[in-house]
Amino acid sequence: MEGTGFQLELTVRFAETDAQGIAHHAAFLVWFETARIEYLRRFDGGYRGLREQGVEATTSEVYVRYVRPAHFDDRLVIQTRCSELRGARFRFEYTVERDGETLAEAWSGHACVDGKTLRPTRVPAWLVEAITAAEAAA
Amino acid sequence: MEGTGFQLELTVRFAETDAQGIAHHAAFLVWFETARIEYLRRFDGGYRGLREQGVEATTSEVYVRYVRPAHFDDRLVIQTRCSELRGARFRFEYTVERDGETLAEAWSGHACVDGKTLRPTRVPAWLVEAITAAEAAA
Amino acid sequence: MEGTGFQLELTVRFAETDAQGIAHHAAFLVWFETARIEYLRRFDGGYRGLREQGVEATTSEVYVRYVRPAHFDDRLVIQTRCSELRGARFRFEYTVERDGETLAEAWSGHACVDGKTLRPTRVPAWLVEAITAAEAAA
Amino acid sequence: MEGTGFQLELTVRFAETDAQGIAHHAAFLVWFETARIEYLRRFDGGYRGLREQGVEATTSEVYVRYVRPAHFDDRLVIQTRCSELRGARFRFEYTVERDGETLAEAWSGHACVDGKTLRPTRVPAWLVEAITAAEAAA
Repeated sequence: MEGTGFQLELTVRFAETDAQGIAHHAAFLVWFETARIEYLRRFDGGYRGLREQGVEATTSEVYVRYVRPAHFDDRLVIQTRCSELRGARFRFEYTVERDGETLAEAWSGHACVDGKTLRPTRVPAWLVEAITAAEAAA
Repeated sequence: MEGTGFQLELTVRFAETDAQGIAHHAAFLVWFETARIEYLRRFDGGYRGLREQGVEATTSEVYVRYVRPAHFDDRLVIQTRCSELRGARFRFEYTVERDGETLAEAWSGHACVDGKTLRPTRVPAWLVEAITAAEAAA
Repeated sequence: MEGTGFQLELTVRFAETDAQGIAHHAAFLVWFETARIEYLRRFDGGYRGLREQGVEATTSEVYVRYVRPAHFDDRLVIQTRCSELRGARFRFEYTVERDGETLAEAWSGHACVDGKTLRPTRVPAWLVEAITAAEAAA
Repeated sequence: MEGTGFQLELTVRFAETDAQGIAHHAAFLVWFETARIEYLRRFDGGYRGLREQGVEATTSEVYVRYVRPAHFDDRLVIQTRCSELRGARFRFEYTVERDGETLAEAWSGHACVDGKTLRPTRVPAWLVEAITAAEAAA
């Protein structure tokens, strides 16, 4: 994944570590979610705007490959891109890096649903356009 | 606190430990919440019933004194009692024990609110009676 | 996955829910870890014994497909089996069910490492034998 | 608490919310810990340096008064000061604010212990001096 796209920087919290002295593997999913939210923040209201429009984004799949452990207080970069966007579905890809070294690679699949009926609903057109333009530029 | 009242047993999860090799101090709040829910489960629908009646229980205060660390896979007993119940407010007290040894002592203050208006609402009479009877018996 | 193998029952904690009113998708990884630990508990010291022998189990991959949401206080069954065991590596498969309905399917890859050098080390022979026998019986 | 001292800004993560649609009350403890770590980062190696010197900081007490709920994506300010420092013990005070409005007030008590023996050990002199100077300036 090229480094020209969106990236989130974060610091590993002490509460995210476990008794192996490393960041717990479930913490990565929280970081990816935070990265998606920051990714979307650049567009007209972002994730919060999506929710206020009555659209919820659900997580349908997640895959992570853990390459090297992250430690307390490590400064991480989460390279994040939206790699697919079709109908109600979208997909994100992530690379977790520390000083240029890859700690994990991951992707997650999502679907937009109507906040009331919970039935699938298309990703709003304004968001499709904004993301398509952003990924084309990256 | 006497050992004749309600108690929850639980096992420290690996994800609840931190890089000091002990259960993270925030995990205790999750255990206390779980203990309150199990405490209330004995009464007519319990916490879930309360929520279905449109009443939410909020947490207004919490205090914990940590005496000894808990470790991964430790089998803990959370002694739990409802020590006060007045109008919209109620209070729980806890002792965390491992093999009879005290690891922590704590209490938490709560208030019932209407799930829609979020304004304080009295603890439902059926619950006041059930808890009062249970604590008198303990 | 057949229902004759190991299964863990657990109740969704309130702290595991999110503002969508469902169990957060990262909570599933914590449940799978708990399921692995309970799975191993049946064998001679289990995961704790492994750690006391100086062997750490690391997580190298995880995949989850979320089919239906889990809610607060849902009683879940995590069907769990060890589907592969070779050298330092092993793999678990999971199905999360509620009243016989599948909520999620998942698998995770792991490797044993020496707790001091963090270099890969074979899964101890006693554990290979115990797991192989247990899975053959299931 | 005056606003002239140290403050940490953070954004409420989606994973930190619960089914009441607000930040879970245990998340505040994680934020306070993060605030302490950032507070100490200004001084010669900070918390990480403390750990590398073989000194662990343990949490012995925590108290939180929750005034108003925090929501997903809220931008919070954690006003943080070290209010006491004596022998092995120290104490922090916190105010959680959103747009100048107080959401919570809290304090926590801590003790330094030797990382190996786990016996109390004095807060290192360099840290006492640095904190005393910083608090006098605030």
